[in-house]
Amino acid sequence: MAYIDLPSGFPGISGLMVYRPETAKPLNELAQALLAAPSTLTPGERELIATYVSAQNDCYYCQNIHGAIAAHHLRGNEQLVLNVKQNYQGAEISDKLKALLAIAGKVWRGGKHVTTQDIERARQQGATDLEIHDAVLIAAAFCMYNRYVDGLATWQPQNADFYRSRGAIVGEMGYVNLKREPVDIEDTAASKAAG
Amino acid sequence: MAYIDLPSGFPGISGLMVYRPETAKPLNELAQALLAAPSTLTPGERELIATYVSAQNDCYYCQNIHGAIAAHHLRGNEQLVLNVKQNYQGAEISDKLKALLAIAGKVWRGGKHVTTQDIERARQQGATDLEIHDAVLIAAAFCMYNRYVDGLATWQPQNADFYRSRGAIVGEMGYVNLKREPVDIEDTAASKAAG
Repeated sequence: MAYIDLPSGFPGISGLMVYRPETAKPLNELAQALLAAPSTLTPGERELIATYVSAQNDCYYCQNIHGAIAAHHLRGNEQLVLNVKQNYQGAEISDKLKALLAIAGKVWRGGKHVTTQDIERARQQGATDLEIHDAVLIAAAFCMYNRYVDGLATWQPQNADFYRSRGAIVGEMGYVNLKREPVDIEDTAASKAAG
Repeated sequence: MAYIDLPSGFPGISGLMVYRPETAKPLNELAQALLAAPSTLTPGERELIATYVSAQNDCYYCQNIHGAIAAHHLRGNEQLVLNVKQNYQGAEISDKLKALLAIAGKVWRGGKHVTTQDIERARQQGATDLEIHDAVLIAAAFCMYNRYVDGLATWQPQNADFYRSRGAIVGEMGYVNLKREPVDIEDTAASKAAG
């Protein structure tokens, strides 16, 4: 059960967003600007960065919902999402994205961990200033979203189909026009709060 | 020098905000909602939470600018800000704020570090659900802002008077109506990039 009295049936960050619309608005607009707005990085690439950082932070809800959104953008390739979470250096992604994921991993540890060499490597693989900026801010933002979702002990369904279907919706709609409605998951045993 | 080509004369996050207005907007609106909008926590209390987390993350710019904003709200009491950063348990602040700072410290380590006991203690000191929510999100948000500012190696002046005067302006204006103009700090030796 969440640490504060949230509306029931809203998993992960969605319950917090219904509870506090004043902060939900900029949180959704930030996700939209970073993950869904036009960019030289594809939505799939950006969602992979979000998923990787969320996995590093061990946030069940965020790594599963953003992993599902990434898979939706990547023609359903759930295996690739898993490979990036487990060992992105060996995954079938571009060298540029590997260099940006390396930067994201440093940001996850703390901003000062990013080095000139990390940035140079990304540039050598063709990353622009804006792509480096956005990779850093995506990683930093998920260090926020993950802490927000876990720090208040939100309800996190353990049902892969929930994430699959919701991920497809978010992948199509983006973040700011999303309707948030309570979820009815029949298999309550499988949808208990994440440990 | 920052890792990407930012407009000159804008310290810390302000250079990033001029560089990328699409993300600056929600980042400022989030700070406004959490730190400056009406709340049962005073602006001084909320800025102290932001300052404490920024000090934990060793972000020079953020702990100094938010420390100065906190001091502005706390009748210029810079010593209190210092005491909260160094040992908030012994500082002259309310037991409720101490309990919220304890939660913020757990969020800083990671969302899963927050326990039922941390929440109960805050409730016993009179904290409401909304205050607990906001303390968690302020702490989480500064885990983002700090990583953003340091991860791109922004210019961070080492001049206490800069933070003092800028802190007073932000304290009066809030975050969304702030004008961002280049800074002219004559003592360039004292305003070199933070290590």
